[in-house]
Amino acid sequence: MERRNYQQGRPNRPIDYLKNSVNKVILIKVKRNRLFRGMLMGFDEHLNLYLEGTSQLFEYMDEDGAIKEEHETLGNIVVRGDNVIFVNLA
Amino acid sequence: MERRNYQQGRPNRPIDYLKNSVNKVILIKVKRNRLFRGMLMGFDEHLNLYLEGTSQLFEYMDEDGAIKEEHETLGNIVVRGDNVIFVNLA
Amino acid sequence: MERRNYQQGRPNRPIDYLKNSVNKVILIKVKRNRLFRGMLMGFDEHLNLYLEGTSQLFEYMDEDGAIKEEHETLGNIVVRGDNVIFVNLA
Amino acid sequence: MERRNYQQGRPNRPIDYLKNSVNKVILIKVKRNRLFRGMLMGFDEHLNLYLEGTSQLFEYMDEDGAIKEEHETLGNIVVRGDNVIFVNLA
Amino acid sequence: MERRNYQQGRPNRPIDYLKNSVNKVILIKVKRNRLFRGMLMGFDEHLNLYLEGTSQLFEYMDEDGAIKEEHETLGNIVVRGDNVIFVNLA
Amino acid sequence: MERRNYQQGRPNRPIDYLKNSVNKVILIKVKRNRLFRGMLMGFDEHLNLYLEGTSQLFEYMDEDGAIKEEHETLGNIVVRGDNVIFVNLA
Amino acid sequence: MERRNYQQGRPNRPIDYLKNSVNKVILIKVKRNRLFRGMLMGFDEHLNLYLEGTSQLFEYMDEDGAIKEEHETLGNIVVRGDNVIFVNLA
Repeated sequence: MERRNYQQGRPNRPIDYLKNSVNKVILIKVKRNRLFRGMLMGFDEHLNLYLEGTSQLFEYMDEDGAIKEEHETLGNIVVRGDNVIFVNLA
Repeated sequence: MERRNYQQGRPNRPIDYLKNSVNKVILIKVKRNRLFRGMLMGFDEHLNLYLEGTSQLFEYMDEDGAIKEEHETLGNIVVRGDNVIFVNLA
Repeated sequence: MERRNYQQGRPNRPIDYLKNSVNKVILIKVKRNRLFRGMLMGFDEHLNLYLEGTSQLFEYMDEDGAIKEEHETLGNIVVRGDNVIFVNLA
Repeated sequence: MERRNYQQGRPNRPIDYLKNSVNKVILIKVKRNRLFRGMLMGFDEHLNLYLEGTSQLFEYMDEDGAIKEEHETLGNIVVRGDNVIFVNLA
Repeated sequence: MERRNYQQGRPNRPIDYLKNSVNKVILIKVKRNRLFRGMLMGFDEHLNLYLEGTSQLFEYMDEDGAIKEEHETLGNIVVRGDNVIFVNLA
Repeated sequence: MERRNYQQGRPNRPIDYLKNSVNKVILIKVKRNRLFRGMLMGFDEHLNLYLEGTSQLFEYMDEDGAIKEEHETLGNIVVRGDNVIFVNLA
Repeated sequence: MERRNYQQGRPNRPIDYLKNSVNKVILIKVKRNRLFRGMLMGFDEHLNLYLEGTSQLFEYMDEDGAIKEEHETLGNIVVRGDNVIFVNLA
């Protein structure tokens, strides 16, 4: 659309940084207080993610206001990108 | 848009991994605490899914905070992709 | 974008399976605890649906936690696809 | 994208059925428990609707769990399609 | 995509009816119980609206279940279309 | 798509009116009861906004139902357009 | 689509201002009461952000209505843009 010349060049896109984490264990924070830990094997521009050896951590608040966690072994999962809040790279 | 050369090649898209699960039983975690188990017969890039022999599991929290489940036999269903949180591959 | 050769061929899209249900009675589970039963006459790629002879079932939880239902005869309706959770094929 | 031959031909799109309801009174069920009744004068592919002689019915649940209604004469309105749950054709 | 011949011709789009309300006072019902009244000066296909001489009415329910209103003079505003439920034309 | 001849010409788009407010102080009402005041320096068609010298006002309802405000000096901010309810022009 | 001549020229897009903050520490206010502080290393037009040396601040309201904060060191993260309310530039 328009030509750009920046002193520091075009900044990398966030998705470019994900490539360095392929085959590494990452953390994915998801809406509705979910957290996944798994090895990143694939992703796309929607931030859909494919993870192997995944564990899920479900955080919830009990009636005393304390934050509780539940772990669950999931194996291989495809996370739909629109649920992702942030990805914590290795 | 731009040509790319990566050391490890272009990472696979998550949707590519779904293809290996066609004709296999998968678990689909859906928003609003629903869980489906069925045989994956078809899907598209929106993560719309077609499942055969599907059972639904509805999880809810009772007044004591305990997580309860309800099972229901559904048969053949089309799940609209925007409801999917993650797909657990076989 | 890219040429594909799969052992099992390209998997069908979920929407392809809907075509086999045209002129048949289906169940549509919709967000906000609604359920429709009607004869599928038309649909599109957004999962917009046109149904004839439709009944609506409204499920809600009363103050004892019991799930109650209400039926209502609607006739011919167009359901906007973004409300659909899943379609249960005949 | 692909050529199709179906026994029953291409199914009509839901929006095609709306055309038969132009100049007729329809019911529109909208998110957040609203209901409109009016004469359909125009629509588009987003299910944006233009209605004349419209009345709005606002349903709510009182503290005893009873469903109450409120009517209001609105006249001519444009409903933004993303609020629509379903349209009940005449 | 396809040629169409209708008895009554192509129905007008809802947005076409908005044009007749330019320079007139309209009511805009917005999500989260807001209501604006102002003179429509401009709009686009997303139902983004530009209004002059606008007043806002904020409706809320008090603890007795009564609907209360608050008025506020705003002047000239741009309403983002995705907040609109319906527009009440003059 | 179609040629148009209107008596009053094509109505301006809401975004055209934002241009007259560049370098002026505007108010931005945002979802979740936030309000920003700052000098508009840039915007785009999504209603993403760049503001300088911004103050944020956070409105909330206390347990007596009274509306309280909190001010906070923010400086230069980019507001993502999908959070905007309306922009109040100078 | 149309040629434009403005007295003050085309206003910069908000995203253009983000470029000046690359390699600087910024604050990101995210939906669901989250706040991140980190060094901006990359971004795209969706406001997806890549941050290094990130800390997360989780704000919540305790049962007395007081706003509490929790800090957490996260390191390098990709924030999905649709969660962003605003970015506070350095």
